[in-house]
Amino acid sequence: MTRHPIVTALMLTSLPASFPLSGTAQESTSPVFGVALPPGYRDWQFISVAHEAGNNNDIRGILGNDIAMKALKEGKLPFPDGSIIVRLAYEYVASDRNNAIFGREQSFVAGAPTNVQVEVKDSKRYASTGGWGYGQFENGKANPSAKIINSCFACHAKLPAAADQVFTTYSK
Amino acid sequence: MTRHPIVTALMLTSLPASFPLSGTAQESTSPVFGVALPPGYRDWQFISVAHEAGNNNDIRGILGNDIAMKALKEGKLPFPDGSIIVRLAYEYVASDRNNAIFGREQSFVAGAPTNVQVEVKDSKRYASTGGWGYGQFENGKANPSAKIINSCFACHAKLPAAADQVFTTYSK
Repeated sequence: MTRHPIVTALMLTSLPASFPLSGTAQESTSPVFGVALPPGYRDWQFISVAHEAGNNNDIRGILGNDIAMKALKEGKLPFPDGSIIVRLAYEYVASDRNNAIFGREQSFVAGAPTNVQVEVKDSKRYASTGGWGYGQFENGKANPSAKIINSCFACHAKLPAAADQVFTTYSK
Repeated sequence: MTRHPIVTALMLTSLPASFPLSGTAQESTSPVFGVALPPGYRDWQFISVAHEAGNNNDIRGILGNDIAMKALKEGKLPFPDGSIIVRLAYEYVASDRNNAIFGREQSFVAGAPTNVQVEVKDSKRYASTGGWGYGQFENGKANPSAKIINSCFACHAKLPAAADQVFTTYSK
């Protein structure tokens, strides 16, 4: 996809006053899409969990804002505009403490945070990428790599159309 | 530990009117502790994730009510009375769909729910088990096995005192 530098400027002028814009715009928003870390995302509701082995080797929780959760619970996809999904990834760590208690090597827990990925639905702003904008954040700062951010869309676009570019389904 | 059948009766008489008491008391509350599935727990905030291999072979999300979350975020343990922690476990499933997209065998996701475990802090009611009562639920019904429920306390009691019988720590 092509970059849309104007998106960043639009985001900055339309942000609510409560938005925590510390540092530069580059630190706060993703390249290509201009996606910021949504305020309060850590307190959002739980969608599901996953473990990615391989290069990531992480364990992750996936949360959604109210708009996304309503769509997921009602099974009404595609997601409406305003839906935001965040994926919190952590180092995949064997728990020596738990294994000692359980008497076998079986327990893997979340270690230090690795990164947070954010997916924002805005069918007009992100029309050229199926209605979704993407961002990745380490220690609260946007990863500045356009290559990484473009790979988000490239990968999510491989999902079946019914998934609406979201890997995770709601776990009851 | 000894059983406290009176606890079940106390729980039933002190439940708020909104509590979903369908079926018999035996189906709604755990043996030994009389712990019920707390209303709305699925919408609670996210504490962390884990994978238990071995006999469980599950992947799990751990959620907390507002009282528990406040204590966890502020790092103020032991947990105050009223804290409730729920652990939602799901079958640990390799995702063929994701692996095909990623081009390697790396993705494990949550399958069907296996069970929900609940830990309730009430330092008076559960004084003989360190202030915590336990329950396990399959398909919304309390597991009736006193042996299983007693094993909850036996295992959690092996944690260091500073953990206050809670395996999970808050993931930022």
